[in-house]
Amino acid sequence: MSYQPPEVGNEISCVMHGIDEKLLYNTKALERKIIGALNKEKFTILDIMSHKFKPHGYTLAILLSESHIAAHTYPEYNSFYFSIYSCRGKEDGAKTYEAVKKYLKPKSIDYSNKKIVVKK
Amino acid sequence: MSYQPPEVGNEISCVMHGIDEKLLYNTKALERKIIGALNKEKFTILDIMSHKFKPHGYTLAILLSESHIAAHTYPEYNSFYFSIYSCRGKEDGAKTYEAVKKYLKPKSIDYSNKKIVVKK
Repeated sequence: MSYQPPEVGNEISCVMHGIDEKLLYNTKALERKIIGALNKEKFTILDIMSHKFKPHGYTLAILLSESHIAAHTYPEYNSFYFSIYSCRGKEDGAKTYEAVKKYLKPKSIDYSNKKIVVKK
Repeated sequence: MSYQPPEVGNEISCVMHGIDEKLLYNTKALERKIIGALNKEKFTILDIMSHKFKPHGYTLAILLSESHIAAHTYPEYNSFYFSIYSCRGKEDGAKTYEAVKKYLKPKSIDYSNKKIVVKK
């Protein structure tokens, strides 16, 4: 697949707190929501892997032409880790992040956003 | 698989610059090095996915019981993005990061390390 990234990418990383645990246990719906948001922001999905832990917890990674996303649920803490790295330019991935946030309705978020410079 | 994470995890994210492009084009050796380092730090690998781009560039994500790593090469810029998130406690993943750094011998690194608190 041919893809020439620009020199600056964007990394969003956050933990969302105070989420209704039902939303975190319904991993199929959560995965659908994330994939739908990525498609809407015109990311190209190359591959998906996920794993369910016992007694709880779910982890998801999606490889994109434009880099990757990762998600981990902590229903026992009503928390959700989400990160997205896009090499498509700054502020990229923000729409996907907003869609996930809108779906999970967290009470608070530890959020960070970092510019990734690949050329020096 | 049963795994109960602690309440604090660690996220390392970096871009390494000034790497000999031969090391970035040899993706098999790079992948072996990363997997070896993860095994040495006693991470449990659940799944691996990777993709080679044309004309260059390689992307790798590894799902761990303890969360995930992601890596992207930019041989055209002599650069390498690497991130590791471990929910096994603070400073975790540092040995894997050091092993990868030692292998790639970058001239400079944009590095960040963030404590991830999943319980609020």
